[in-house]
Amino acid sequence: MAGAAVRVFNGRGGEFDAVVDTATKAGVQVRVHGRRDAQPEVHVDVTLAQAVLKGDKMDDVVRDAVMMGVLAIRPIVTTRSEVALASLRRSHRQERWQRISVSSAKQCGRAVVPVVHEACTFEEALGPLGGTGSPRCGLMLVEPSAAASVVSVGEVGSKPSDATILIGPEGGWTPEEITLGSSVCRLVTLGSRTLRADAMGLVAIAALLTHWREL
Amino acid sequence: MAGAAVRVFNGRGGEFDAVVDTATKAGVQVRVHGRRDAQPEVHVDVTLAQAVLKGDKMDDVVRDAVMMGVLAIRPIVTTRSEVALASLRRSHRQERWQRISVSSAKQCGRAVVPVVHEACTFEEALGPLGGTGSPRCGLMLVEPSAAASVVSVGEVGSKPSDATILIGPEGGWTPEEITLGSSVCRLVTLGSRTLRADAMGLVAIAALLTHWREL
Repeated sequence: MAGAAVRVFNGRGGEFDAVVDTATKAGVQVRVHGRRDAQPEVHVDVTLAQAVLKGDKMDDVVRDAVMMGVLAIRPIVTTRSEVALASLRRSHRQERWQRISVSSAKQCGRAVVPVVHEACTFEEALGPLGGTGSPRCGLMLVEPSAAASVVSVGEVGSKPSDATILIGPEGGWTPEEITLGSSVCRLVTLGSRTLRADAMGLVAIAALLTHWREL
Repeated sequence: MAGAAVRVFNGRGGEFDAVVDTATKAGVQVRVHGRRDAQPEVHVDVTLAQAVLKGDKMDDVVRDAVMMGVLAIRPIVTTRSEVALASLRRSHRQERWQRISVSSAKQCGRAVVPVVHEACTFEEALGPLGGTGSPRCGLMLVEPSAAASVVSVGEVGSKPSDATILIGPEGGWTPEEITLGSSVCRLVTLGSRTLRADAMGLVAIAALLTHWREL
């Protein structure tokens, strides 16, 4: 409605007070008149690399991860995933998850809309972690018994500038994936409790942000 | 089916291997032949005192809290709750939540079934926290701006033997409730992020267990 006071955000950290000029079916024109202090963002650039889950559980994972302050979500397809990359692309799931990211950012008052990348394979997701140059922090969530080198969240170390959290599908990682992942990631466990696959992301992010004093 | 190998648990920490003797509509008889090592429980007796949420969101809160290892759930009715104690009793919600506790314990492999208490008022929930004798740890989740004495999870202090986590309804606590609560609880915040009311419990438990090195 023309004249209404609204708050708008650009999805990249800017949040503004504005007044509606015109509102039609084709769109809304607003007049911006002041920058607001947007909600502060987390000081670690977190990417959640989550194996695509069954049904629409991934919708909740995206919604929750955005609420917790991640900067990006990278859906991955692993050996035990029950969905194929081709079918994800055909069904335009990435566009759907990106819309969920926008609406979750709005609901939580975040001025930044996290990007949801196109789905890729587990090996592709590891790519950015292995490079020389700027060392990136990869954290692969596993069962406590997965390997001798598994650490708990409290042993992950001090706050990095960025972190990629890798979480497997309902059926877990294969031993080969754990071996491959351990070459470029730390293997991290959330303890002996059995968590539902669709809750792992939220719990892992909450635990890591607590450890890094970001909660 | 007679002869089938099963695993049974008594809901109080005991887990056993057994074989089915007879299975009829009236019930199943099993022969227990060995005690198993049950999944270890959290070393803090956590009670989640959660203001009842709208619709069936409380079902998810109960399910998630049991998954995270709480020992009890106490539904509470606060000033801004949109449900009344009488209507909760009439609709047998406590029995429903107790059944959800059983099924979540099973799903997560916990040998302990957390008790879901009958709903009570906020003031009644504070009762056990104010007493002399064994000091109990009450933690009331609030917005960062709620009072001068609000601390972050990292400042909550060392691991207590028991803790009651109080979480308000969608509309939050009233200022009077915060004043009353602060007389027997620490006021704790999860930071400046805006969390959905139905996710607060899971995030708070994950954060506190991380802080206490229980994850």
